[in-house]
Amino acid sequence: MKKIINDPSTVVAESLRGFAAAHADLIRVQEDPAVVIRADAPVAGKVAVISGGGSGHEPLHGGFVGQGMLDAAVPGAVFTSPTPDAVQAAVAATTGEAGALLIVKNYTGDVLNFETAAELAAADGSDVHSVVIDDDVAVADSTFTAGRRGVGGTVPLEKIAGAAAARGDSLEAVEAVARRVIAGVRSIGVALSAPTVPHVGEPTFTLAADEIEFGIGIHGEPGRERIKAEPADALVARMVDAVVVDLPFESGDQVLLFTNSMGGTPLIETYLAHGIAERLLAERGIAVTRRLVGPYITSLEMQGISITLLKLDDELTELWDAPVHTPALRWKA
Amino acid sequence: MKKIINDPSTVVAESLRGFAAAHADLIRVQEDPAVVIRADAPVAGKVAVISGGGSGHEPLHGGFVGQGMLDAAVPGAVFTSPTPDAVQAAVAATTGEAGALLIVKNYTGDVLNFETAAELAAADGSDVHSVVIDDDVAVADSTFTAGRRGVGGTVPLEKIAGAAAARGDSLEAVEAVARRVIAGVRSIGVALSAPTVPHVGEPTFTLAADEIEFGIGIHGEPGRERIKAEPADALVARMVDAVVVDLPFESGDQVLLFTNSMGGTPLIETYLAHGIAERLLAERGIAVTRRLVGPYITSLEMQGISITLLKLDDELTELWDAPVHTPALRWKA
Repeated sequence: MKKIINDPSTVVAESLRGFAAAHADLIRVQEDPAVVIRADAPVAGKVAVISGGGSGHEPLHGGFVGQGMLDAAVPGAVFTSPTPDAVQAAVAATTGEAGALLIVKNYTGDVLNFETAAELAAADGSDVHSVVIDDDVAVADSTFTAGRRGVGGTVPLEKIAGAAAARGDSLEAVEAVARRVIAGVRSIGVALSAPTVPHVGEPTFTLAADEIEFGIGIHGEPGRERIKAEPADALVARMVDAVVVDLPFESGDQVLLFTNSMGGTPLIETYLAHGIAERLLAERGIAVTRRLVGPYITSLEMQGISITLLKLDDELTELWDAPVHTPALRWKA
Repeated sequence: MKKIINDPSTVVAESLRGFAAAHADLIRVQEDPAVVIRADAPVAGKVAVISGGGSGHEPLHGGFVGQGMLDAAVPGAVFTSPTPDAVQAAVAATTGEAGALLIVKNYTGDVLNFETAAELAAADGSDVHSVVIDDDVAVADSTFTAGRRGVGGTVPLEKIAGAAAARGDSLEAVEAVARRVIAGVRSIGVALSAPTVPHVGEPTFTLAADEIEFGIGIHGEPGRERIKAEPADALVARMVDAVVVDLPFESGDQVLLFTNSMGGTPLIETYLAHGIAERLLAERGIAVTRRLVGPYITSLEMQGISITLLKLDDELTELWDAPVHTPALRWKA
């Protein structure tokens, strides 16, 4: 294993130190337990929107802390759920009378630890609700999951819930918008290579030189099948098909198309895939009215992409367009 | 070679199609020859700032086209200089009475083709000046270069020259600011793995499992030496030393620190390296007053990072801070 690190056991803490130095205008980092907190938190009268999960998916979640998105992000060790006390610390640092919404990706450890934290916070007198995102259409259950995994849909979910909180929605209203996003978002991913977790030291899985894992998880969990490498046109068609038939997305729908690099796939290929997906959706009569392209939810240096579709209406579009100012997403602010 | 492409010969054109679809609010793409052009170009009365070079370094340069930075970017084939007619087309699409500044990275093909284009444009009556950036301290001459290579310093150069043009500076003034950036910026890169150029089909070079190329070029050109893999603290110290002694940067200086991922190195490692670099500069009495961290000038999926230091003064700081609204850099706009 060759990585730019000192010691696998200090990777997350050292990385957060650099992150804090780079973005002191937007966030602060609390240590032991590690939490990334919006610089001006708590924001009086506003619902706090909090997420988190294992590290190794950057910029998710810490890169989305700031104005108009998350109030706090709780980073676990690489590919490891954060502990309940860390989530509790995030709630304590950001949550006032208006309460907090926890956004949890559907992995058994995350669900359990965020639930425990919510109970601890409730005992402290905080009004804390949770939503669980499970947008990955690849498999019914997975290595670390009962039910579907939470993947790319997490990014628009955090953006839109954050915007609802920023405009002054109540906790119940922010939660309702979040549940509407979860109901209308679907994703699928593919891997061309495996990530290497620092404290493991070797690749999470092995793919032959001509193999692609179709339906990969963001921790390298197995997908639907291993397929032979194929041209991008065929691969992206396979991905778009899997996502579209699931909801289903239909002719006349307006959607956000999020084409994500898993980390190791360069932008030149990510944009190429995005162009194909736009064309295929247009052929189905599905109107792409908003886009996001780039590495926003990654799996360390894994090569691959994911495609996420979110069904939009006027309100979700308005919340997507609302100002955001975070290390990784920034517009109109 | 496993990549998300259809055909090595159409990678750039297909990628630009996706790029155009994703960012129609900011840019348009002209085909045959390929040029990325600011959506509202030509901007009356403004000096046009134009750059370009081989593809495979995304988001450089196309991702920096928009308000406050580049008016056009000319993408060649992967790792291949754009042709003079493409550069000429970029000048024609963006340049009015105020003239144009061409920003050229120091590679023999780029210098020759941009020079030819400048002569053609001058014959057409355009007032075109050029600057050549050669910020890589690694080696005196390189595979494709007489003199030093142009690397990470290109990003702040394009931002600052773009801001000078946006505030209404004359061509002579924009050029003078650009030359001041070039005089005060230095970079060095390292590689942990090699990129694979689509039309070549195999990695550009080979590194042993415990080797790092110190002083790598952005096309995989050899650096100063191959070193044994070492902890991040030692590696980043070696990089900071090489950059600092070159200008030299001195105690009391204010600098922009740009910690760049070469593509395949994830953000968690890039931020970790950034944190170390900030600490080492503080120990030398060099004040980091502005930062940029992430994959902004890449070498396809190559694993590695580069560190760029730019000496700042009040004017350069103000130009760095000025509004920018492009696909890859966006603030205050």
